[in-house]
Order: sequence, then C-alpha cells, then structure tokens
Amino acid sequence: MRIAIDAMGGDNAPDEIIAGALESISLLDSDDELILVGKRDLIAEKLSGDKTGRVSVVDAPDVIGMDEKPIESLREKPKSSIGVLAKLAKHDRADAVISAGNTGACVAAFQMRMRNLPGVNRPGIAVVFPTFEGPVTICDVGANIACKPINLYQYAVMARIYSMHVLGIENPRVGIMSIGEEEAKGNEIVRKAKEFMRADTNMNFVGNIEGRDIFRGVCDVAVCDGFVGNVILKLTEGLVEGLFKAIKHELMQEKLRLAMKFKPVMKRIYQKYDYNEYGGAPLLGVNGTGVICHGASNARTIRNAILKSKQYHRNKINDKIIGYLSKSTIRTADEQGS
Amino acid sequence: MRIAIDAMGGDNAPDEIIAGALESISLLDSDDELILVGKRDLIAEKLSGDKTGRVSVVDAPDVIGMDEKPIESLREKPKSSIGVLAKLAKHDRADAVISAGNTGACVAAFQMRMRNLPGVNRPGIAVVFPTFEGPVTICDVGANIACKPINLYQYAVMARIYSMHVLGIENPRVGIMSIGEEEAKGNEIVRKAKEFMRADTNMNFVGNIEGRDIFRGVCDVAVCDGFVGNVILKLTEGLVEGLFKAIKHELMQEKLRLAMKFKPVMKRIYQKYDYNEYGGAPLLGVNGTGVICHGASNARTIRNAILKSKQYHRNKINDKIIGYLSKSTIRTADEQGS
Repeated sequence: MRIAIDAMGGDNAPDEIIAGALESISLLDSDDELILVGKRDLIAEKLSGDKTGRVSVVDAPDVIGMDEKPIESLREKPKSSIGVLAKLAKHDRADAVISAGNTGACVAAFQMRMRNLPGVNRPGIAVVFPTFEGPVTICDVGANIACKPINLYQYAVMARIYSMHVLGIENPRVGIMSIGEEEAKGNEIVRKAKEFMRADTNMNFVGNIEGRDIFRGVCDVAVCDGFVGNVILKLTEGLVEGLFKAIKHELMQEKLRLAMKFKPVMKRIYQKYDYNEYGGAPLLGVNGTGVICHGASNARTIRNAILKSKQYHRNKINDKIIGYLSKSTIRTADEQGS
Repeated sequence: MRIAIDAMGGDNAPDEIIAGALESISLLDSDDELILVGKRDLIAEKLSGDKTGRVSVVDAPDVIGMDEKPIESLREKPKSSIGVLAKLAKHDRADAVISAGNTGACVAAFQMRMRNLPGVNRPGIAVVFPTFEGPVTICDVGANIACKPINLYQYAVMARIYSMHVLGIENPRVGIMSIGEEEAKGNEIVRKAKEFMRADTNMNFVGNIEGRDIFRGVCDVAVCDGFVGNVILKLTEGLVEGLFKAIKHELMQEKLRLAMKFKPVMKRIYQKYDYNEYGGAPLLGVNGTGVICHGASNARTIRNAILKSKQYHRNKINDKIIGYLSKSTIRTADEQGS
C-alpha cells in the first residue's frame, strides 16, 4: 500500500509529520510505502537519516496557510502540498492521503480530485470522540454545512461501517443529533432523515440524541450537519482545555506537592481520551482514502493516522459503503420524495 | 416586586423549590413578595414553618411532566403550574415568573401569554456559561430553531443588554457562532446577521467565533440559532459530567488518600463554574420577566434565579431592549431586504 502524507501541513510541520511517518514504518507491512509531499530539499535533508528506503518524496513547492480561503488558495497554488496530494490520489499514485493542513482546502481538494463513491451524494468528515463510555464517531464535522436528509442518512451508513470495521464495534447504535423538543416542534431535515433511518432495518437506530448523550454511552455513532458537528468538535476542544486550566489553577492554590501528585493522573486522562490516538478524521464518501488531521497534530497523531488509513484500506471500507448503499432503497425514496 | 415560582417544576420539586424561595426572602427587599404556584395543600403544608408572611400560594392542581409535549400538554392541562404561572404574568399579578419545569412548555406558555416586547420578532433563551475567562452569555439555546438573520441580530442586542446590566460587563464583546471556513463557504443566515451587526456601530462586534472560543475569553456574548445553542448547552453539560467521571475513576486507581485530597479541589471548581450560580435562563424578548431553570435545579439555583429576576426587573432590562431596538435601523433594513 502507498500512503502519501502532506509534510507541510499543520502547526508542527514538517518535523513532527516526518517523525510520525518514520515511526509508523516498523508498524506497517514490509511492502508498504510512504510518500512525503512538500518542499523536496527540506524534506530530503530531514530524511537523510532514514535507513528503511521505503520513504520517497514528491515535490510540492507551495504551502496553503491554515487561514487561507480553501477554494481560492487551491486555485492560486496548484503546486501546494494539499493540491499535489489530492492529485496523487486521483492518478492512483497513492492508496491513501493524509494531511494536517487547512481542513477546508483538504475537503475541497479531496472532493474535487477523488470524486464521490458511487451512491454517495455528499462526503462527510467523521471524527472519533474518545469518551468514558467508549469511542463515538461523529459525522459530519464540517464538510457539508447545508445538509439534506439523504446526506444525514448516508453519514449514518458510512460512519456505522467505519465504526464497525475500523473501531471494531459490533452493530453500532446510531443516533441523530437533535434537541429535546424537536420531536414536537420539528427541524424538518432531521425529521425526514429519521424516517430514512427508521426505514433501514439494518441500522441499529436509537433516534434523537441530545448533546450530552455523546458522553453518556447512548450511541456509538452520531450524525449531524457539518455546522453543528464543527461546533461540537471545537466546543469540546475548548471546554476540555478550559477545564484542565481551571483544575491546574485550583491545584496551584493548594500545596505544590498535591499539584505534583495529580500530574500523572492528568497525564493518564490525556492519554486515554486523546483524540490523537484516533489519528485524524477520514473524509467518508470520496473515492479513495483521505484523512484530515488536526492542525496541532504531533508525530503520534500522524503515526496513528497512517495506521488507521491502512486499516481503512485493508478492510475495504469504501467497497462496504458502495455495497450497502447499492442495496439500500432509501436513496430512491429521497429522489422520489424531494 | 412580586415573583411567582413554579413549585412543581423540575426533578427536585417541590422541596428544593420551596427551600430556595424561603432562602431568598432575607436577600430581597422588605416589600418583595413571593408566590408559589402548584398543588395548594402540598405547598401549604411545607410552608407551615414560614414566619415571614411574604409567601403566598396560588393553586395549580396539574403538573406538566418533563417529557410531555409542550403545546399539547399546555392545551390539555390549563391548570398546570406552568400554565397558571404564565397567566399570572399576563394579568399583571406577578412581575417575574420562574420555573424549573418542562423547558418547551415554559417557552410556549411565556411566549403565548406575555407576548413579545415591541420591536422583538422572536424571543430567545439566554444562558450564562461560567468560564475560566469570565461569564459568557449564549442566546438562543432552544426557543427558536428556525432563526432568521434579524432574530440573531436581536439576540445580540438583548443578550448584550443582559450582560451589561445584569452581569455588569462593560461594553460586552459580541460574537456569532460559526465554523472556520464559513466566511468563505457561507451559511447565508449567519452571513446576513453579521451584516446587521456590523452596521450597528453601538455593538462591540468581534465577528465569527468557533466553538472553542467560548472558553477562551474571546467574547462575552455569543449568538446562535436555538438548535446549535441547545446542542452547545447539553454537550457542555455532558462533557463536564463525563470528564469529572473520568478524573474520579483515575483517582480511584491511585491511593485513596490522594483521591480524598483532590475532593475539595473538585468541589471548589464545581462551585466556581457552577451554572446554578447564575440561577436560570431568562427568556429574552417577552413582555415580562420569565426565567427558565434547569430541571436539576436545587434550592441554591432557585434562590439565585429569584435574585437575578429581581435584578432583571429593577434594572429595567426590557425598557432598555425596547429603547435600543426602537432606535436601531436594522429592523427596517431587514424588512426591506427580506
């Protein structure tokens, strides 16, 4: 398998990205290859110590900044690492592509170059939340902010397959993000999507879930539109950060010795519930394996993203999605209904 | 001032509600009166020890359950505590009404009976998030899931006035909840609402904010539609709950003595960042003072809700909202534009 990685993407590029790639080598099969995409000379220099001979470099002289506008920057910088990465996937020169760069640019480039899987209307980003009750896969977290009911249904199908065959969860419980009184008052899109999910008897659909249910072991998969999902993702990040800050502050008011004793506890929690463990978010529904990592990714995230993309590819997630959707009658129902 | 409280609302009714009401008496002015609404005999019995003579009872034999459908239950139970509460406000027999009961029923009853303030298109629920960087007021968290740009603008106006005159924040920074790439890709409603806010030169508008910014001291007021706001509210609740559970679990793996030492730290954090401190969420934009409390409210929440409703009333928040909107040209602009 050939896995291409954006060496220039994210806040810690290129050092952490390259380090993560090298770390992953011993954990991959002996015929797997890595392709680092970015400024050739810079990468070559940093790779000089590599003895494996399984890492090659593809030149991409430009970089898209984290705050640049996705579509415009891809147009203006055709030789950006993200642009080149997507082209490698398109021309079948890579089986999986991974980037910790500008998320919007990744989504746009992957969608544009790889196209959608047969049967998929819109791709969605799936993120795995490590919770006390186990991992919960949330889709979409930002690819599609104007969701139709069919998109939400397909996110459920795809995230469910991901949850089963990458996370190893048997018959995942699927919930749809909503609010308490929604059943009565009604968000039309959510309501219609629920009809689709109920009509699909293969799906272990648990109905409406509320924000708190994500952390209460109520479901293994949660679907929502990309606007809501993105707010969920970033709120969680900010809240955990803020809460740990508050705990640290309070501990410093106590004796320093107590604060020191609490440090390993915090560290263990960080490790257990660290999203880096899940190594980035796949863009489900594109014809290929595209993984988008957090801008703050470190070597560990990249290593794990590489390993997850391997699992994704080996377990033929895309074939399973195509197979499932080709048998589903829901697609037709929507086309007739709306 | 006459403050009416739903004695039957919430998981801890009626004991905690009545206890909270009695606790508040000594903190109110000597001519303030409390009205407890609910099953007369039950309340009278529990009030038998009250020596203040400033608490009266209004009978409401029915109770709307937490999971009942708002509109239907109000129709079927005209003598429910929530229904009677809203009628007291309507007929000017109470200056403020407070309930920890079914949120949807409260919103529906308050809107229906009190009507909107002049100039307000839709009321919104404002919740105060205690964060490490200070209190952040979020509006709307569930009254209006189909927001128009003018609603978001008016939520900013109302929540800003609340933040200034109830929380004491000078010139609050106002943000609009969005996602990273929104500026480029665009959620039409958010984009139009931003135009309104930028056109209002009195508003200290900081533009787009992301989920994590709520906890980063970026803004004092955050506006969003009720669907997103409700997800934010409940996600925060579930995440804090889950994280504390995880910390507790990890501490139990350590020596018990360490866990015991950490207990007061946790307790202090709970107290500092406890939403009960802010005593419920006002339904901004109705012609009256209506406060909705969390279903899990205890005596402290109710006491604080009573005190906040007093502040709301005394500081003439509604007059300030009417005055501000009557001078704003934004309302006209929207009526012309959409």
